[in-house]
Amino acid sequence: MNELLYGVAYYDEYMPTERLETDIAMMKAAGINLVRIAESTWSTHEPQNGVFDFTSVDRVLDAMYEAGIKVIVGTPTYAVPTWMVREHPEVLAETPKGLGRYGARQIMDITSPVYLFYAERIIRKLIGRVCAHPAVIGYQIDNETKHYHTSGPNVQLRFVKYVREKFGTLERLNKEFGLDYWSNRINSWEDFPSVVGTINGSLGAEFARFQRGLVTEFLAWQAAIVGEYKQPGQFVTHNFDFEWRGYSFGVQPDVNHLEASKSIDIAGVDIYHPSQADLTGKEIAFGGDSTRSLKGANYFVLETQAQAFPDWTPYPGQLRLQAFSHVASGANMVEYWHWHSIHNSFETYWKGLLSHDLGPNPTYNEAKTVGADFRRLSPQLANLRKTNRAAVLVSNEAYTAMEWFPLPGRKFNYNDVVRLMYDALYELNIECDVINASEAALDKYDLLVVPALYAAPDELLARLNEYVHNGGHVVYTFKSGFTNDNVQVRSVTQPGMLSEACGIQYSQFVEPNNVTLKGDPFEVGAEHNQVHTWMELIEPTTAEVLAWYDHPHWGSYAAVTENRYGQGKATYIGCFPSAAVASKVLERAAKAAGLWGADQENQFPLIVKSGVNDNGRTVRFYFNYSDASRSFVYPRQEGRELLAGDSVATGQRIELARWGFVIIEEG
Amino acid sequence: MNELLYGVAYYDEYMPTERLETDIAMMKAAGINLVRIAESTWSTHEPQNGVFDFTSVDRVLDAMYEAGIKVIVGTPTYAVPTWMVREHPEVLAETPKGLGRYGARQIMDITSPVYLFYAERIIRKLIGRVCAHPAVIGYQIDNETKHYHTSGPNVQLRFVKYVREKFGTLERLNKEFGLDYWSNRINSWEDFPSVVGTINGSLGAEFARFQRGLVTEFLAWQAAIVGEYKQPGQFVTHNFDFEWRGYSFGVQPDVNHLEASKSIDIAGVDIYHPSQADLTGKEIAFGGDSTRSLKGANYFVLETQAQAFPDWTPYPGQLRLQAFSHVASGANMVEYWHWHSIHNSFETYWKGLLSHDLGPNPTYNEAKTVGADFRRLSPQLANLRKTNRAAVLVSNEAYTAMEWFPLPGRKFNYNDVVRLMYDALYELNIECDVINASEAALDKYDLLVVPALYAAPDELLARLNEYVHNGGHVVYTFKSGFTNDNVQVRSVTQPGMLSEACGIQYSQFVEPNNVTLKGDPFEVGAEHNQVHTWMELIEPTTAEVLAWYDHPHWGSYAAVTENRYGQGKATYIGCFPSAAVASKVLERAAKAAGLWGADQENQFPLIVKSGVNDNGRTVRFYFNYSDASRSFVYPRQEGRELLAGDSVATGQRIELARWGFVIIEEG
Amino acid sequence: MNELLYGVAYYDEYMPTERLETDIAMMKAAGINLVRIAESTWSTHEPQNGVFDFTSVDRVLDAMYEAGIKVIVGTPTYAVPTWMVREHPEVLAETPKGLGRYGARQIMDITSPVYLFYAERIIRKLIGRVCAHPAVIGYQIDNETKHYHTSGPNVQLRFVKYVREKFGTLERLNKEFGLDYWSNRINSWEDFPSVVGTINGSLGAEFARFQRGLVTEFLAWQAAIVGEYKQPGQFVTHNFDFEWRGYSFGVQPDVNHLEASKSIDIAGVDIYHPSQADLTGKEIAFGGDSTRSLKGANYFVLETQAQAFPDWTPYPGQLRLQAFSHVASGANMVEYWHWHSIHNSFETYWKGLLSHDLGPNPTYNEAKTVGADFRRLSPQLANLRKTNRAAVLVSNEAYTAMEWFPLPGRKFNYNDVVRLMYDALYELNIECDVINASEAALDKYDLLVVPALYAAPDELLARLNEYVHNGGHVVYTFKSGFTNDNVQVRSVTQPGMLSEACGIQYSQFVEPNNVTLKGDPFEVGAEHNQVHTWMELIEPTTAEVLAWYDHPHWGSYAAVTENRYGQGKATYIGCFPSAAVASKVLERAAKAAGLWGADQENQFPLIVKSGVNDNGRTVRFYFNYSDASRSFVYPRQEGRELLAGDSVATGQRIELARWGFVIIEEG
Repeated sequence: MNELLYGVAYYDEYMPTERLETDIAMMKAAGINLVRIAESTWSTHEPQNGVFDFTSVDRVLDAMYEAGIKVIVGTPTYAVPTWMVREHPEVLAETPKGLGRYGARQIMDITSPVYLFYAERIIRKLIGRVCAHPAVIGYQIDNETKHYHTSGPNVQLRFVKYVREKFGTLERLNKEFGLDYWSNRINSWEDFPSVVGTINGSLGAEFARFQRGLVTEFLAWQAAIVGEYKQPGQFVTHNFDFEWRGYSFGVQPDVNHLEASKSIDIAGVDIYHPSQADLTGKEIAFGGDSTRSLKGANYFVLETQAQAFPDWTPYPGQLRLQAFSHVASGANMVEYWHWHSIHNSFETYWKGLLSHDLGPNPTYNEAKTVGADFRRLSPQLANLRKTNRAAVLVSNEAYTAMEWFPLPGRKFNYNDVVRLMYDALYELNIECDVINASEAALDKYDLLVVPALYAAPDELLARLNEYVHNGGHVVYTFKSGFTNDNVQVRSVTQPGMLSEACGIQYSQFVEPNNVTLKGDPFEVGAEHNQVHTWMELIEPTTAEVLAWYDHPHWGSYAAVTENRYGQGKATYIGCFPSAAVASKVLERAAKAAGLWGADQENQFPLIVKSGVNDNGRTVRFYFNYSDASRSFVYPRQEGRELLAGDSVATGQRIELARWGFVIIEEG
Repeated sequence: MNELLYGVAYYDEYMPTERLETDIAMMKAAGINLVRIAESTWSTHEPQNGVFDFTSVDRVLDAMYEAGIKVIVGTPTYAVPTWMVREHPEVLAETPKGLGRYGARQIMDITSPVYLFYAERIIRKLIGRVCAHPAVIGYQIDNETKHYHTSGPNVQLRFVKYVREKFGTLERLNKEFGLDYWSNRINSWEDFPSVVGTINGSLGAEFARFQRGLVTEFLAWQAAIVGEYKQPGQFVTHNFDFEWRGYSFGVQPDVNHLEASKSIDIAGVDIYHPSQADLTGKEIAFGGDSTRSLKGANYFVLETQAQAFPDWTPYPGQLRLQAFSHVASGANMVEYWHWHSIHNSFETYWKGLLSHDLGPNPTYNEAKTVGADFRRLSPQLANLRKTNRAAVLVSNEAYTAMEWFPLPGRKFNYNDVVRLMYDALYELNIECDVINASEAALDKYDLLVVPALYAAPDELLARLNEYVHNGGHVVYTFKSGFTNDNVQVRSVTQPGMLSEACGIQYSQFVEPNNVTLKGDPFEVGAEHNQVHTWMELIEPTTAEVLAWYDHPHWGSYAAVTENRYGQGKATYIGCFPSAAVASKVLERAAKAAGLWGADQENQFPLIVKSGVNDNGRTVRFYFNYSDASRSFVYPRQEGRELLAGDSVATGQRIELARWGFVIIEEG
Repeated sequence: MNELLYGVAYYDEYMPTERLETDIAMMKAAGINLVRIAESTWSTHEPQNGVFDFTSVDRVLDAMYEAGIKVIVGTPTYAVPTWMVREHPEVLAETPKGLGRYGARQIMDITSPVYLFYAERIIRKLIGRVCAHPAVIGYQIDNETKHYHTSGPNVQLRFVKYVREKFGTLERLNKEFGLDYWSNRINSWEDFPSVVGTINGSLGAEFARFQRGLVTEFLAWQAAIVGEYKQPGQFVTHNFDFEWRGYSFGVQPDVNHLEASKSIDIAGVDIYHPSQADLTGKEIAFGGDSTRSLKGANYFVLETQAQAFPDWTPYPGQLRLQAFSHVASGANMVEYWHWHSIHNSFETYWKGLLSHDLGPNPTYNEAKTVGADFRRLSPQLANLRKTNRAAVLVSNEAYTAMEWFPLPGRKFNYNDVVRLMYDALYELNIECDVINASEAALDKYDLLVVPALYAAPDELLARLNEYVHNGGHVVYTFKSGFTNDNVQVRSVTQPGMLSEACGIQYSQFVEPNNVTLKGDPFEVGAEHNQVHTWMELIEPTTAEVLAWYDHPHWGSYAAVTENRYGQGKATYIGCFPSAAVASKVLERAAKAAGLWGADQENQFPLIVKSGVNDNGRTVRFYFNYSDASRSFVYPRQEGRELLAGDSVATGQRIELARWGFVIIEEG
């Protein structure tokens, strides 16, 4: 990749009138150099079983090539045609809600051989046709793939074989999952009940893991088929996404991104986020750090918002800020979903770069400046290498287990704890990786943040203890270490094996009600000194207590502790603290880990990111994530501000407009 | 009609003990001169398949006739007997929620030939039996008919034929509905999926229109059967109802009242409304204006509340106020649902004129005064003719389309916009018609108010532009003109063709967050100067801007505009304003349209209505919709106050008790 | 019984490692002298159809016997094994939600002969095996039995036969239930529709009564089987439970406790309650008074919380307070659910006396003191006899009827009214029985409190009138007497036959909105003088009015009245009052009934309970239900404080620590 890609998803098929020439002219004017096509329109490309029509693909490829716009072709397998469902209703996934209904996308059983047969055929027809076309630079397999909760009898059958393979005997399964409880014990494989109604969290979590495995398997199967056609220089990618709360919030429950990404060449991602006054850059950073960490390499933002919804239509300047924030996190592509707003159906109000009138508008006009800057600054900004010394360790298994055993009140889930910690790092300008719990190479980090690692195998806890012993720094939150990989609560003093490195123990936990940290030890003020939702009654063994609870009966228990263990240190937060307290604890840990420096002279909303470019030069971004102008003193080596071209001296005061930013290449 | 009808729904069948004689004596004492019977008790009249028993009908008819009380006989088809469901479970409507269950009323498939066979038989048996009885003055067909969401395979099949008839080719259907999107394209009629699961709003809205057509068809079928028996002087009516929010709120989503009313002789309506401190008369006026406008004639209030629920039990005086408010809107009948409170089942707490003890009570006692006044004043108050110069244009299509594409937050729907505008007119004492979007004769109005006309054919928008060009005044709200009749967003600058008459354009819209109108241009005060939920970023072309947004980024866009176009004027409200702002905009438009006069010297809670009676004299009603006494200066020609019989001079100050009113006949 | 039993539910089957010896040693150290076993683990005891394995039962019985710990053996019938559901899916109850799914407990059709066959076999196998074991003192049949909403075709068929048996003719059924309404009339038994969809509250309530009968029948069937094995001195018990609101709130809707308890020897109960700052003792008292009243005898607390949830983990002292509160209500057993916390599945966070680490912890340590005191004080505290002069009369029928006809807003149900009145008595230290509406012996009480007796047969109302006439005192609340046993509203002036004793009548009722009691007649202050939710417009006939409504239109109606009738008095509360007003009304009634005395010198949070022990001595408990220390003047005869052994003089001031208590044996 020798340039930044600035793209849009493009649907010639949806256009109300013939527009291809006009669209391309407008794209060129905006610096768009990439389009993604074909991933949503199976029913157009195969109007009847075995009848194919790639007219719209052919004409778009030819026109884009002529215009010098690169193309990613998507396999159109995430939305099935009506004829398939009419012929074979069984391709619809049976879920805990019952049999499926035709209408929405992503409703099929991704294990159905009927579906797989037709999917393979359309993939081979389409990819075989386009792979030699000079416009095509790569492929997106499927789209935001998940398992869609498929759990019909065929899936249950595979699951039974899977657990038999994994556990060997029912005796072991019954023991690990505690199935004697409430007479759930299974004494013969034939008796295995559908998991749909289970009240056993161990069994339910195992099924969720199995379902995530189906996604991994499905993507690997698609990647292998596409791989047969892939030409030298072409890539296969996929657009992963996140827990959806109306925007991209946290760890995706239904996919193990690390496992699923192994079959693709370049990790891709969809990132949608609040905007206007609520734009913070946090989701851009979290999504980027997560995706970059999958392969330790630059990644594609395959979808992000242009205008989208009424509350996401960007303020002037925000579209630019967002685009360069992606690049600063290591993205080599920023692609909007989508080019033009759609005139019918479900996503009519999910607007693209063009409004429904398909003419220029303020957002499109701002995109033109992004496109120009991407083109001009590609030599300096493409392929940014990032080497972070901090990481946040996340876990699908912990997420699922905490869904089965939710925090009191069900107001917060696993991802709220992840984001509490991640966001605190972000606001402190401590750039980090977001790594999977199965990640082996911990040693390259000086600081690990481990939120709510509620379910984890002994092996992982041992590895984390060893990491500390060897000089690493870990900050754990409450709930970590509580259950094993089978969501069985450890029958030792908590937090299980982590007690050793953390120098603490507890056997009781309560729900705080008007509880604060005694004496406001982190000096955050009364408003931020409250703990909520969860508090463990911690007794230090070797740990130093950083905060005690202020409570008439539980004032003798610790809330936050720190322990020297071997060459390193382990911090433990035994309650759900405020963001301010989380920040102070991380500040202390980061200082101890040697991670406190020039970047920390500024904090959110002034965000600092950096990387090393192909020329070996460090590039530093300073973003103003606020609606007021703001200045800062540049603390680094002298360099050149890339947007304006001015040279910048160490110690120079730099002004940032509201939602503005500068990019400084050192040296 | 030469008298006001004062009626009750009467169910001899429900009585705990023999009461007919007592009931009639109490009715006579209260001036009740009409009862409606038989519409709810099919299982009593046909206890077994083909076995008929009209004992209760016969005896009630005879007794009522003897007492001089007129009778409307209802066809008992809205609640099916147990034997029918046992014999033919398929008469229950299959809906998106699944197969039906016996229990409630209005659960059948109104297209089922089994149901239609039995319904026709009971109608012919009942109406054939009673039509010559001298007590019978007319018939109510069915009861609050709707389609009950019937959508089983038989209905889907008819729908496919209907769309084929309407659109001709799938090519056109796919294009108009945008079915390429998410692979929803239908390439063969056999592949047409059930609409139940669709995510395509165009398809869904078409199905809703088709379902409304089933209601029109069903009522026409019943009216034709009853018509075979109808004697000279007898009428067929039906009780339409409204969007139900615990009371009659707005446009009925599931019935096209205008189309459905074509097969009946006199339009009828059910109006239920808040009471006690929340009584405003708004629902009485909205329901009355809507129903009167169906045929441009007097109408029947076939159901309204006597005591009803604990929170609706009227304060002293309110029952009178309500009854005469109906008459002032052009009703020739006020009928309570129902005579006596029921001692079992679902509507036990929906009390009638009598409480469960079946004796006199304060509400019944107040009804006696209404009955006496109705009888005495019928010559002056029956057949009031109303000629309004303003109208509110409403649309089932806009309602449905906005259900598919709801306002952000889903707190407000189409009817909230309708009522925002209607209620403002009501409070200003600008009487109006409520007309259907397909209404051709716009020229008779000086002022049209068009709330949220979100879906409309080009033809209608052209007609509205022409109306303005010819000298009419229109006030539009946001969302008008946005999509066509197929709920396809127009691909021109918004508000589509309305841009021409309104002199504005916009291509972006956002969700306001703490946005006001710059400088409080309508002088409504800070509290009322906020806009909420929706704001279009309007640029005037030829329009004058009445209000700008106050916003750090969007302050250059217009919120409310006014444009001279030809001989008329078009006002456009681009955001969801407060009631106070809506009122000010309407005041300005009304003044421009020459609609500001003596009635506007008073405003809500002092409500003014008027009409011309059979003697050609103007009758004016002044209602005090408040819990405090109130006075006003009578601004019209001298006349006679009909209740007290006093003469009234121009300029005379008149006192109104709390919840009181006067009726003045001019001349 | 010559000792207090201090027990735990024990599940050897759930233990992660071999622990029996350790567990028993820890039990002994805590004074545990009872365990309940086997009621949850059918799948362990019968791993395959007809294959039995009672290893864990045998070894636990032997080990417990050796340790001197008594055992209650439960029949394991409330949770069915997987093999049964695989072989016979029809054992799962079909409910209004559809067919059942395997997974949770209590999902079977308790009328299924398949289920009953297997249940009988396991009962005979298990109980036959253990009945002669010297450790076994009794049996718990099933567990918290309810009908689980079973309502499939077989249950419907039985129900039709049941109503035919009860009503004789459809004519009578149609009349009593008002089935003419909405064409629900049933004219042939074959047409009887499934009750699942009914909108007729009379029919629905009858079905609920029928379903409660199924529970009675099921428990009698089990008790008879177990009775065949029961040895002299052994007992059969069952753990009844309550309306569940996250804790034991009020009358159990699905079981008629009085009827169901007839087949067992000793009434048992499960009581769970809020804790920490929310601990009041109210649920302990309500549950105890309810259960003791079933047989007029001491009862077992078969389940109550040790630590349970994060918000229930007791403050220091609370476990003791709770245990002795049970005893003070007449419990002869306090048994925790359960011994050890479970490491998997649904109730992982419902912790036992031991935490998941299975070691000592603060709660366990406090239990040790309870066990020691129970052992030491058994001669003084076992078999306490309680003779209360007040009673609260409750009714399953009233509960169900008020579910069908809920209070406006649905915020409060029948049990809220029950608890309003019960809690007021509790706070006044007026100990009471909680008796079933069918209880014949009312004369033994001086004061009856009758909350919301919404459905009741004439016979009961007559009996209540007679009770007053003979000198009794009754306090009724609103809604009492309104409908008969068939939930048919009485067609006389309300409150029906109660009018006579209460000296009042009303025919209208409204929903209060900012309504107070005129002049604050109970001197409770503005905050507590509001009425809410419901107000009846009462006119006194012979009654004295204790409070009038303050309302601009309804100020002439009474809110609270009192009437002398014969030798007694009837008080009627016509609205939903504050707790403060309810307390004042009850205080007045208690004084009139001669129930005001020394115990009333203190009020909640200082709670007084008493009873007479086997030595014929009165034992008085003074509990401090608050987080602050508190003192009181001892007003009774001199005696000995049993915990400390100190003698106590009349008039002596006694200090109570926060959550502390004393027990004084008089004489």
